[in-house]
Amino acid sequence: MVKLNDNFFKLNESYLFSTTARKIREYAAANPDKPVIKMGIGDVTRPLIPQVAAAIAKAGEGMATKEGFHGYGDEQGEAFLQEAIKKYYLRIAGVTLKRNEIFISDGAKSDVANFTDLFSNDNIIVIPDPVYPVYLDSNMMLGRKIVFIEGNEANGFLPMPYEGLKGDIVYLCSPNNPTGAVYNRDQLKTWVDFANANGMIILFDAAYEAFISDSSLPRSIFEIEGARTCAVEFCSLSKTAGFTGTRCGYTVVPEDLVIDGHSLNKMWLRRQTTKYNGTSYVIQKGAEEVFSESGMAECMKNIEYYKENAGIMAKTMDELGIWYTGGINSPYIWLRCGMDSWEFFDMLLNEIQVAGTPGSGFGKCGEGYFRLTAFNTHENTLEAMQRFKKLLAK
Amino acid sequence: MVKLNDNFFKLNESYLFSTTARKIREYAAANPDKPVIKMGIGDVTRPLIPQVAAAIAKAGEGMATKEGFHGYGDEQGEAFLQEAIKKYYLRIAGVTLKRNEIFISDGAKSDVANFTDLFSNDNIIVIPDPVYPVYLDSNMMLGRKIVFIEGNEANGFLPMPYEGLKGDIVYLCSPNNPTGAVYNRDQLKTWVDFANANGMIILFDAAYEAFISDSSLPRSIFEIEGARTCAVEFCSLSKTAGFTGTRCGYTVVPEDLVIDGHSLNKMWLRRQTTKYNGTSYVIQKGAEEVFSESGMAECMKNIEYYKENAGIMAKTMDELGIWYTGGINSPYIWLRCGMDSWEFFDMLLNEIQVAGTPGSGFGKCGEGYFRLTAFNTHENTLEAMQRFKKLLAK
Repeated sequence: MVKLNDNFFKLNESYLFSTTARKIREYAAANPDKPVIKMGIGDVTRPLIPQVAAAIAKAGEGMATKEGFHGYGDEQGEAFLQEAIKKYYLRIAGVTLKRNEIFISDGAKSDVANFTDLFSNDNIIVIPDPVYPVYLDSNMMLGRKIVFIEGNEANGFLPMPYEGLKGDIVYLCSPNNPTGAVYNRDQLKTWVDFANANGMIILFDAAYEAFISDSSLPRSIFEIEGARTCAVEFCSLSKTAGFTGTRCGYTVVPEDLVIDGHSLNKMWLRRQTTKYNGTSYVIQKGAEEVFSESGMAECMKNIEYYKENAGIMAKTMDELGIWYTGGINSPYIWLRCGMDSWEFFDMLLNEIQVAGTPGSGFGKCGEGYFRLTAFNTHENTLEAMQRFKKLLAK
Repeated sequence: MVKLNDNFFKLNESYLFSTTARKIREYAAANPDKPVIKMGIGDVTRPLIPQVAAAIAKAGEGMATKEGFHGYGDEQGEAFLQEAIKKYYLRIAGVTLKRNEIFISDGAKSDVANFTDLFSNDNIIVIPDPVYPVYLDSNMMLGRKIVFIEGNEANGFLPMPYEGLKGDIVYLCSPNNPTGAVYNRDQLKTWVDFANANGMIILFDAAYEAFISDSSLPRSIFEIEGARTCAVEFCSLSKTAGFTGTRCGYTVVPEDLVIDGHSLNKMWLRRQTTKYNGTSYVIQKGAEEVFSESGMAECMKNIEYYKENAGIMAKTMDELGIWYTGGINSPYIWLRCGMDSWEFFDMLLNEIQVAGTPGSGFGKCGEGYFRLTAFNTHENTLEAMQRFKKLLAK
């Protein structure tokens, strides 16, 4: 008699986005004359840059020809894309990687979740609160022991290791989703040293690295000395180049990351060659253009557009004297709402027709906070902030 | 101190294709005047049909426009593609599915391997020998207990359940890789009845279903009464439409598949929403064309091309009186070589410059057998079979 993985039944159902969507829908139906400005959008809204779309189209068309057809590729990705990413790391972060340390995939979510395969279930997993829910859920599916480290105003929602912290694997996300907070070099160095001293692995989610404009902040954990022996980095083209529906990401597993004589790079290669069959050639051709200098310059225009929105929101919070994180090197603003975060959601929706996301949806420590995103238009962002000011300056 | 998943270190390294490739390379280097005909190709060789490539190109180009841009899609796939596959099942197999029973992915390999997530490690896994290695490796990575069921000439390399067979999950692949053997309706009914009677799940790999032309043979396990309460079906566009490098597959999880009150359909949805982020919109637009009547008619021309090659090989085996499976409803011929399968490999390579794949590479029971594939050209297939006849008619 087949036995199911009963860890699935211990997972919390997340009703966060379905509940916010339902409330917005219901409000809109009852108030057709009062359009809601959606500041809870977690998806990009600006199209792919033409250079990337053209490369996808060309590769797609070529697949119908003898010369342009491509069958099975390497599970770890095409050399041309690995090379392009290698150059990108050197250019933006001064980090030298080997080509075989870069694994191409269909996105960071898959890689972050599948990377759990490499570890015994007998580890203690350290997860920040609040944070992107995939870290927690993918480990809960394996019945692993979870320890939360708290984000709060005192640490700027950037939890740090502390004496007595017991854990084997830690997830860090910087720039953070949902808080927009970014670890600085000293903070990451503290994490790296702690991990190396305690035989801990850092799974570093850098999905929002392209939003960092402050050059004093690290865009890759491999800018930090010692990271090559304790860290894996996940990255994505979703927010960098608008690939949320196009799907491409990559994971960096340094050759120096060796545990008990076993190379994690070789383990991940084995995992991917056994359980994955490579990323679409067509999409990899588009991704290659993202990492060209001209392509990235174009992509940065979209990122700048979102960041201007974030700047508009940050300025409003400053004017209102509201405590927040993010808004600078991130598409997110994480603000103190001074009340239950669902009550705040309802208040914004009902009184000024602005929809965001209640912080409590991202973890216990998110209660009392609220997330706004920069993925709407300038016009809507400005209008939402005008309404915000009117409401909260009362 | 982080603890690795040490099941990884119990995996056998497969040197099958790297060894055959090396031997071919070495032979070619030493004998530049004697070109080798590769009959071990496991990848398709004919380009995408123009209709599919055009749809990919159009969707790719559209991604650079406001109207054509698509961000995050549902993890389980786009409704238009689920609907197209639903119609395809009805058309080719008389099987009625619900849209939400069809999950789109980047390929059957990922789904077959990731589906293991839904089960406790405390199951006995039943795996045919010889067979596609992913079933074994993905379960060995979890340290699960494996029981092999033997394929042999007596059962036509189609192992059946037997009284006393203890197992909780069984993998069936039909048409089979590597043997090309296809279960008939009675045989699958026996498996389905056995599974239902014993609380067993059948993970049915139908990646080669499009090669079945004999209408008495089932193309989907859901043609068999009772399958909806015990089976999951994995399928792929790789061999159906040449998507080996384009990447798209799908998995059918019936709503009626309920274990201890838990829906496997809902569990797989939860797995995919947590650990996957959907298949590229661009690729799904191409896949949609595969399942249109005109698209499938075009795809079938490529399949017919491969099947003519398989027919040429089967005829040669008949003429030589060599026992084999496959060759009709499959791109594979699995032949008795009457000697150690690596010795046969060397003999073919050295004496007639034809390269195939030694059966022992697919499992212990493959020893003494040899796989030829239909993915070369007509001309090369004919030439290889001429040489085969000369050698073996001696």
